[in-house]
Amino acid sequence: MNTIRSELGWSTRERITVRGKDLPGEILGTLNLGDMAWFELTGTAPNEKQSRLFNAMAVALVEHGVTPSALAARLTYLGAPEAMQAAVAAGLCGLGSVFVGSMEGAAKLLFEAVRDGKDAKTLVSQHKRIPGLGHPLHKPVDPRSVRLFAIGRETGYYGKYCELMEAIGKEKNLVVNATGAIGALACELGLDWRAVRGIGVMARAVGLVGHLLEESRQPMAEAVWHKVEAEASQHLRK
Amino acid sequence: MNTIRSELGWSTRERITVRGKDLPGEILGTLNLGDMAWFELTGTAPNEKQSRLFNAMAVALVEHGVTPSALAARLTYLGAPEAMQAAVAAGLCGLGSVFVGSMEGAAKLLFEAVRDGKDAKTLVSQHKRIPGLGHPLHKPVDPRSVRLFAIGRETGYYGKYCELMEAIGKEKNLVVNATGAIGALACELGLDWRAVRGIGVMARAVGLVGHLLEESRQPMAEAVWHKVEAEASQHLRK
Amino acid sequence: MNTIRSELGWSTRERITVRGKDLPGEILGTLNLGDMAWFELTGTAPNEKQSRLFNAMAVALVEHGVTPSALAARLTYLGAPEAMQAAVAAGLCGLGSVFVGSMEGAAKLLFEAVRDGKDAKTLVSQHKRIPGLGHPLHKPVDPRSVRLFAIGRETGYYGKYCELMEAIGKEKNLVVNATGAIGALACELGLDWRAVRGIGVMARAVGLVGHLLEESRQPMAEAVWHKVEAEASQHLRK
Amino acid sequence: MNTIRSELGWSTRERITVRGKDLPGEILGTLNLGDMAWFELTGTAPNEKQSRLFNAMAVALVEHGVTPSALAARLTYLGAPEAMQAAVAAGLCGLGSVFVGSMEGAAKLLFEAVRDGKDAKTLVSQHKRIPGLGHPLHKPVDPRSVRLFAIGRETGYYGKYCELMEAIGKEKNLVVNATGAIGALACELGLDWRAVRGIGVMARAVGLVGHLLEESRQPMAEAVWHKVEAEASQHLRK
Repeated sequence: MNTIRSELGWSTRERITVRGKDLPGEILGTLNLGDMAWFELTGTAPNEKQSRLFNAMAVALVEHGVTPSALAARLTYLGAPEAMQAAVAAGLCGLGSVFVGSMEGAAKLLFEAVRDGKDAKTLVSQHKRIPGLGHPLHKPVDPRSVRLFAIGRETGYYGKYCELMEAIGKEKNLVVNATGAIGALACELGLDWRAVRGIGVMARAVGLVGHLLEESRQPMAEAVWHKVEAEASQHLRK
Repeated sequence: MNTIRSELGWSTRERITVRGKDLPGEILGTLNLGDMAWFELTGTAPNEKQSRLFNAMAVALVEHGVTPSALAARLTYLGAPEAMQAAVAAGLCGLGSVFVGSMEGAAKLLFEAVRDGKDAKTLVSQHKRIPGLGHPLHKPVDPRSVRLFAIGRETGYYGKYCELMEAIGKEKNLVVNATGAIGALACELGLDWRAVRGIGVMARAVGLVGHLLEESRQPMAEAVWHKVEAEASQHLRK
Repeated sequence: MNTIRSELGWSTRERITVRGKDLPGEILGTLNLGDMAWFELTGTAPNEKQSRLFNAMAVALVEHGVTPSALAARLTYLGAPEAMQAAVAAGLCGLGSVFVGSMEGAAKLLFEAVRDGKDAKTLVSQHKRIPGLGHPLHKPVDPRSVRLFAIGRETGYYGKYCELMEAIGKEKNLVVNATGAIGALACELGLDWRAVRGIGVMARAVGLVGHLLEESRQPMAEAVWHKVEAEASQHLRK
Repeated sequence: MNTIRSELGWSTRERITVRGKDLPGEILGTLNLGDMAWFELTGTAPNEKQSRLFNAMAVALVEHGVTPSALAARLTYLGAPEAMQAAVAAGLCGLGSVFVGSMEGAAKLLFEAVRDGKDAKTLVSQHKRIPGLGHPLHKPVDPRSVRLFAIGRETGYYGKYCELMEAIGKEKNLVVNATGAIGALACELGLDWRAVRGIGVMARAVGLVGHLLEESRQPMAEAVWHKVEAEASQHLRK
């Protein structure tokens, strides 16, 4: 059934309600931005441990330097500085299967494996490529994964999904990267795997605003453009 | 000069650095998502009061029900469920002059007015339309503004920009809406007005992920489509 | 090897060259917009028959009424009328696996089937879902497919890919929809299946500009918003 | 009044109608893609001269090499190759005030100037910046403008708007660039200035599909990323 119905928010003259709570009275000043994200996704406010772990997972994805996504946003801003929202949007469009989407893949794989009682060996034999493993730079460990798993332990959320993810990494002799760790921890927290890519998307939106503010003060997009254009057409100019 | 240079983040094999701090060691588990946004924008971690106020400002913008932005995201997800990031992007594209952009307009106006020593009467006489004023539903007050100004007072950040915004509202006999309050508070916090629209963009990205998760479980986009299409072409079908 | 190199276009003070042709002298006034798309994709100008068929394929995808994509664009324009390009972008974001992407799927399936010598029966037995088949409204035939195949015959491009597509439709007892016909015809024309979704994307960009011009004169987005919002929150307002 | 109503297209089981014409029977095989764009925007099919000029205007904007917009699309495709539509969308998001938007500005300025009887001298004295003038590379003439004005003359559409644009260029001693010429010719054709940016948006969508097809065969985005990232963080690595 497909009905027009949402539980997320509604307003009257005097009240603004989000998932059953009064936004001004019960949410503003009480929940931080990461807690609010959790509340949007689950319908309940996180407890202290959930808040600590979930915020760390989101924060880990905010900034990773001059990525393709940050570059796309900056190049877009160069042409439409009056529409910063569109530059953030352009940056988000590339968070697909290659980069951030692997979080979703890892979460789905782990969720189904635990449900179906599959171990690391079985998974490795059944899947040529496991999302959330490997990193071109961070070897033999991804320091974000180490830290996130540690926070998982401190908050009591390091469990069977994390163990399975680390076992798969050992089996394949590949580093568990940040997206693998976050996929596993999302399962531990009981989050729907369909929401997991979204954690990366919202986090990166934060980072992209940072890049655009820097671009407005210390621009690089025009220089990137001219440099790349010159190099790309050099062979034609002879 | 336009050089290719960024201060935001960089990585080596062992380290991931964001604005000079070690991401795993100094940021993860320490900063919440709103604090991280502040850190991205300013380069320093917020103190407790800044954290409280800034998180409240961002949280206020996360969810406002079935807005045009949420609908655009849901309709996009209907056609490309495999690319949730693009659905969030579609939802962000509409955060322009009419909705979230007014925050930027309010911040810029207040920043320049205080710098140039202009009072409410002068501003009202000089500007036909003041951004951040008026709301179709929330009258005579926007409860978010009331609460945000209260948190501003609690944290010591209710000052001349907020006073000016409220004075303009009285002069025009219009409610100071949430975007007006946030524009004023952003000035109090010393944030660059060019970053202010970005607070809304990042916050709404969080809310849009919430809408898309709900859409994946309890879809409305297809019903909206069929209903609107039928109504829009009714006069042609006769 | 991943080098920074493009063959598409470059300019000097006096000349603007696109794929080896002088843009002002050899292209403007000579190629129409569909021919130019062909030229971008293949590097040679189409002959008369290719031009006729390819333009028809693209034109078939421009306008299909108030679709989810058109609605997303209109709702985006409501919030950011100063950034029409972002509203078109929002509308394009939803052209994924469910709607326009099926063209790519059909082209890939047919291309590989002919290469590997598979017939309709084999394909149907191997694939639970065949892209390019079925339509909720147009039954027992999609009039666009009938016409496009007819133009294919007139231009000498109705061949083994089209026959296979129609045989699959018969086997499954499903209508070959416009995306199936276009996928097959793209194969006949020797186009790369990776470019096929792009034909739909460029065509829809044309249609979305039409919707946004209509929206600027005869708006519906605000009415859609209020209507849907009221219905979506009705159960919460009781 | 804001009613839910569109004149663009609607379908029944047997028929697909676009702006009153039967799509399969009256449009497919008859209109080329540029004609279809004209038909979407105006509601009537173009005559031969309108078709020739309008197609030339759109074609002029399809491809201009490795622009910021093309780079944004390629960088997006690197992360989400399964969502080509989102990569085109990302590329379109930057067609704002700096690049393609100047067409709209020129059209609006010329339309209002002719309506109000203002001449070039008056306009130059009243406007610090005139859109559609100047080019960093093409001097003393933009060869596209020269050719487009020539086609305008051939088709009988070089008139008062084009004259005014050229007079302004002389007054300011700046080249009339392609966006200025197209803005003027759009006025000659009686097109609504609100649709003019859209001509660039649809044309660039065509070009971006070309760039993405090239990127899928001969990628540059990853090399651009690594090169820029290395340069941008060089000063931090010391």
